[in-house]
Amino acid sequence: MADKIKVSLLGSTGMVGQKMVKMLAKHPYLELVKVSASPSKIGKKYKDAVKWIEQGDIPEEVQDLPIVSTNYEDHKDVDVVLSALPNELAESIELELVKNGKIVVSNASPFRMDPDVPLINPEINWEHLELLKFQKERKGWKGILVKNPNCTAAIMSMPIKPLIEIATKSKIIITTLQAVSGAGYNGISFMAIEGNIIPYIKGEEDKIAKELTKLNGKLENNQIIPANLDSTVTSIRVPTRVGHMGVINIITNERINIEEIKKTLKNFKSLPQQKNLPTAPKQPIIVRDEEDRPQPIIDVNAESGMAVTVGRIRHENNVLRLVVLGDNLVRGAAGITILTVEVMRELGYI
Amino acid sequence: MADKIKVSLLGSTGMVGQKMVKMLAKHPYLELVKVSASPSKIGKKYKDAVKWIEQGDIPEEVQDLPIVSTNYEDHKDVDVVLSALPNELAESIELELVKNGKIVVSNASPFRMDPDVPLINPEINWEHLELLKFQKERKGWKGILVKNPNCTAAIMSMPIKPLIEIATKSKIIITTLQAVSGAGYNGISFMAIEGNIIPYIKGEEDKIAKELTKLNGKLENNQIIPANLDSTVTSIRVPTRVGHMGVINIITNERINIEEIKKTLKNFKSLPQQKNLPTAPKQPIIVRDEEDRPQPIIDVNAESGMAVTVGRIRHENNVLRLVVLGDNLVRGAAGITILTVEVMRELGYI
Amino acid sequence: MADKIKVSLLGSTGMVGQKMVKMLAKHPYLELVKVSASPSKIGKKYKDAVKWIEQGDIPEEVQDLPIVSTNYEDHKDVDVVLSALPNELAESIELELVKNGKIVVSNASPFRMDPDVPLINPEINWEHLELLKFQKERKGWKGILVKNPNCTAAIMSMPIKPLIEIATKSKIIITTLQAVSGAGYNGISFMAIEGNIIPYIKGEEDKIAKELTKLNGKLENNQIIPANLDSTVTSIRVPTRVGHMGVINIITNERINIEEIKKTLKNFKSLPQQKNLPTAPKQPIIVRDEEDRPQPIIDVNAESGMAVTVGRIRHENNVLRLVVLGDNLVRGAAGITILTVEVMRELGYI
Amino acid sequence: MADKIKVSLLGSTGMVGQKMVKMLAKHPYLELVKVSASPSKIGKKYKDAVKWIEQGDIPEEVQDLPIVSTNYEDHKDVDVVLSALPNELAESIELELVKNGKIVVSNASPFRMDPDVPLINPEINWEHLELLKFQKERKGWKGILVKNPNCTAAIMSMPIKPLIEIATKSKIIITTLQAVSGAGYNGISFMAIEGNIIPYIKGEEDKIAKELTKLNGKLENNQIIPANLDSTVTSIRVPTRVGHMGVINIITNERINIEEIKKTLKNFKSLPQQKNLPTAPKQPIIVRDEEDRPQPIIDVNAESGMAVTVGRIRHENNVLRLVVLGDNLVRGAAGITILTVEVMRELGYI
Repeated sequence: MADKIKVSLLGSTGMVGQKMVKMLAKHPYLELVKVSASPSKIGKKYKDAVKWIEQGDIPEEVQDLPIVSTNYEDHKDVDVVLSALPNELAESIELELVKNGKIVVSNASPFRMDPDVPLINPEINWEHLELLKFQKERKGWKGILVKNPNCTAAIMSMPIKPLIEIATKSKIIITTLQAVSGAGYNGISFMAIEGNIIPYIKGEEDKIAKELTKLNGKLENNQIIPANLDSTVTSIRVPTRVGHMGVINIITNERINIEEIKKTLKNFKSLPQQKNLPTAPKQPIIVRDEEDRPQPIIDVNAESGMAVTVGRIRHENNVLRLVVLGDNLVRGAAGITILTVEVMRELGYI
Repeated sequence: MADKIKVSLLGSTGMVGQKMVKMLAKHPYLELVKVSASPSKIGKKYKDAVKWIEQGDIPEEVQDLPIVSTNYEDHKDVDVVLSALPNELAESIELELVKNGKIVVSNASPFRMDPDVPLINPEINWEHLELLKFQKERKGWKGILVKNPNCTAAIMSMPIKPLIEIATKSKIIITTLQAVSGAGYNGISFMAIEGNIIPYIKGEEDKIAKELTKLNGKLENNQIIPANLDSTVTSIRVPTRVGHMGVINIITNERINIEEIKKTLKNFKSLPQQKNLPTAPKQPIIVRDEEDRPQPIIDVNAESGMAVTVGRIRHENNVLRLVVLGDNLVRGAAGITILTVEVMRELGYI
Repeated sequence: MADKIKVSLLGSTGMVGQKMVKMLAKHPYLELVKVSASPSKIGKKYKDAVKWIEQGDIPEEVQDLPIVSTNYEDHKDVDVVLSALPNELAESIELELVKNGKIVVSNASPFRMDPDVPLINPEINWEHLELLKFQKERKGWKGILVKNPNCTAAIMSMPIKPLIEIATKSKIIITTLQAVSGAGYNGISFMAIEGNIIPYIKGEEDKIAKELTKLNGKLENNQIIPANLDSTVTSIRVPTRVGHMGVINIITNERINIEEIKKTLKNFKSLPQQKNLPTAPKQPIIVRDEEDRPQPIIDVNAESGMAVTVGRIRHENNVLRLVVLGDNLVRGAAGITILTVEVMRELGYI
Repeated sequence: MADKIKVSLLGSTGMVGQKMVKMLAKHPYLELVKVSASPSKIGKKYKDAVKWIEQGDIPEEVQDLPIVSTNYEDHKDVDVVLSALPNELAESIELELVKNGKIVVSNASPFRMDPDVPLINPEINWEHLELLKFQKERKGWKGILVKNPNCTAAIMSMPIKPLIEIATKSKIIITTLQAVSGAGYNGISFMAIEGNIIPYIKGEEDKIAKELTKLNGKLENNQIIPANLDSTVTSIRVPTRVGHMGVINIITNERINIEEIKKTLKNFKSLPQQKNLPTAPKQPIIVRDEEDRPQPIIDVNAESGMAVTVGRIRHENNVLRLVVLGDNLVRGAAGITILTVEVMRELGYI
């Protein structure tokens, strides 16, 4: 463990990219050595190429890094490539790198539902990384591709996992209330969303429902068998900056002991906690008993944004209801990718 | 119809009260002749007692009306008393007036679930006014009390009514996203809700579920038999000014023809439309086909705030899903009260 | 007055364009017969080409108008061309039309400071239209070009005009607080401005200061002699939707009678009022005595957005201070253009 | 320095009080041992009495502290009493404690302009603490009273101090844009300020102008001679959460070298920096060259909220213009009080 792992970052000047830059700057063994961005920025120093929006200054060791391209040549000598690319650019760029032998861990949507590509939310399904033993052969790739889920699926999957036995026997109705940052820094204009709510996010509802089945799937015969999760999702954009909330209604005839449910959620631990990984939250699921929590402006930063907060747990009328909140930029994006790399190293895939 | 109906208004300086003042100013046959407010304002001119927040100036004929008390003496000579009182003050004040013989039509929550008090959303259940034939005797009152529903129940009940056959055979899961004005002008501080969402509104969820059963109930043997509506509600406060939205999920095994559903909603008409009442919307339910509607800043004023807008109608996975939006201050409060008075006059109760 | 004036509209699908469409729909003698928009929309029906954001539906007579190009051929048979084009596209398009003989009245910035082009805020300087008697010859144009000022200059110039004697002998320090709509519907992202203020608007400060001198200039010897207005402006973007506010500090040693000042402002009338033009506000400057006015959400729609509201008038310490508010989309853009056309017709230029 | 200084805190459950609790929890030698709040909370544990709104949990050592009264008896054994009381309650409570011998350092407004009470913004005028040598005798008090300025005056005074020679020979026009937190957590409702700006803050403009003269005053013959600062202030409430901004226009005929001005501001240091006090910012005034800075959401936390950020420095037209931003809760309130205590200890007043 003496040596640091050298990483490069695709999409380094975007909102999620900046969050990764900040998280990597303090990392004990991941070292950011290459940053790439869109063609027009290549050659510029990072500090001149980025419109920095994170609190505090750009980490010093990154300020003067020159922006490189996304081509293989520019990433040849790093151990892992992290990708915070926009979905529409990711497929061909990531594929080229993987075909050339790179290990790519990516937030972008292409390949998430590919049966040979692990879709990882570390606490939920780190075991799915075992797919990597077959990926090269099945795909004919020299490298490795690992995906992280959609930001909302990442957050919603957290409290569903410990309740998976109930959940798979139930119908699940979810309404998500998603922050504007989920659409990117310039994704939605003030005039469109201030004082407004928009009951539609393109593609989101299907992604969430499908990714939840894969995330909670079982590895059998070297394949992921999707979980039988019957969820119907409505996604609404709300005028908050950071933090995706979900109202999860699990319709079940089973007898429910609410205190048991709370304890199960609070005590949920997984490999990242057992191995005490640097980016792992001590307690992945925080349960609040106050009647008006979770709230984005108070709870979004719990465990530096890596924990989700669950409140308003109630069972009435054959409906088990939870309200979940998580940081879409950290738990839902930058942090989940870094934690995935930590797990991969722990398990020897890096 | 030569003579105007004289009305007085309780709670005239609040947000809903102001809205009523404005709506009454243009009314063809309702004439606002008395305004009451809290004791410290009695004797002042309306324009000096109110912090006017509606667009435009205070209607001229109201500006100099002196604020009167809520006592019977001060309302002796009006035909109808409208009440926009806060819930916590309403019970004893309204009761005194009714016992003394006044006709009171009220927005406040007390007595809403009383079996002898009609809870009226005119298009939905104007027939329930028939209870008034028995109210005096059963209650021992000299006057009459009619209630309007909770603002969210008023809005949500609109699209449920035409779908009532499906709805009563189904489980219904509702998430409401409610504007800040629903808590009153000074109800929620900027620091508490700006850029935030709060997944809790005291008492709201139960009120909505229960009032929906009464609103959709049937009058049998001179009693309201509540509808068998099994709804589970989660209410969330969102940082919008006006307009309550609801995501209504109706879980049903029936075969659904979405185009039929849309037509049924669009064509829904009731007594207020048939009688062409002054405050009635021409089309109570507007159906939008755009994928990102309804939105508060665009749709809330449809039909001057008296129509609700329904969008994102979908049937998938045994879930019929609608997104509904209505103006909580007009359809949900001031307008529903005025329309109720219009129906009562039409039917001879006034 | 039997015949209507046929107008076409450049930039008809933008935010100001939509506002003009709405205002023209109710106009007694201006008839919108052609709408143009960017090349990709040509041939579509207006209703299919526009993302309508105004309250209420698209005026019926415009819904099916086909989008035309900005070329002369497509505007040959209209009497006046109105322009709500973006600044960066306006110059060449408008010039082509003017050279071909069209009368163009435009909101866009190019040519505003051209000595041969009248820059008109009707109440302030309708007399400057006299320049049109010389424009064709001086410019070698077959048509006519009239400009409207920057939206903030339009609003700020209103209360300065009646105080011009004091103002031209003084130093003036202005801070403007400008709504997000001033940057266009998609001009500023929610993430950039929500809960934030940005103390910079590109190019704005200079435009305001310079245009104020031209607007208040005198016509002498067939030329505009700019007024001696020494103003220093700081422009700040604030998270409001509509309404530009200005704090105007006039540093003066003169004796000031505040009540006189208020009376002067209130009583200000000009040609549009005297001729009772359709779009003219009855009272162009509204003076509020309440200590906390003007406010955008209350005052912006005064006189349908055509009046400016002035409050907090104070003289202390040799500083005469006013706070001004106006509707940047109506008084500052769509309405000022339409009112300019009305004046031009009144004076025989159309 | 072995022993810690024991402090108690008045107004501990308010927004500024919570900020102080948080800052004191990490303090090297100030130890919070008593917390007081309004009578109804006395006896409760702090964690049960407070509606905690700061990010993160209540510091552990404070959670179970019982709320005490503001009476002398309850503060007898602390070394210093800090006060975050509301202005309207502060006078009598603080006076009782001072008369009984306590050292009180307070944020509240009463006594700020009293000639015998130092009004301290540490970097600006720590020397004024010398007044304390005369305070007991002149006032007949057994204890000591030290005041901190109004939050906006605290922030605006920072860049004025290094420019005091120019400033005292000039007329100064200031417009302030102040965050909602300045009015307290529940001070302004969402409906009143969201999407709005209010050009009035009760009492603020006068306080700022007057306190600036005292803060920049000179100690001569054991008295503060106010500085000759001729400033005219307009204060506007804007819908931001934290951070007061000021546009400072200094009207001056002097030759100005902008680069010199910037250097002077950047290099400004004072006793807190020289003595390296725990709460002192390393660089009290940060100068930004980017054209669109400072901005609240990016700059408010500079140096943990203890530095002010200055941008848009320009000299044109005989006006030297600066835009200043500071954290009204830290630099303007909680932090300035704690830093004042640190200076008092350094100078032997504690």
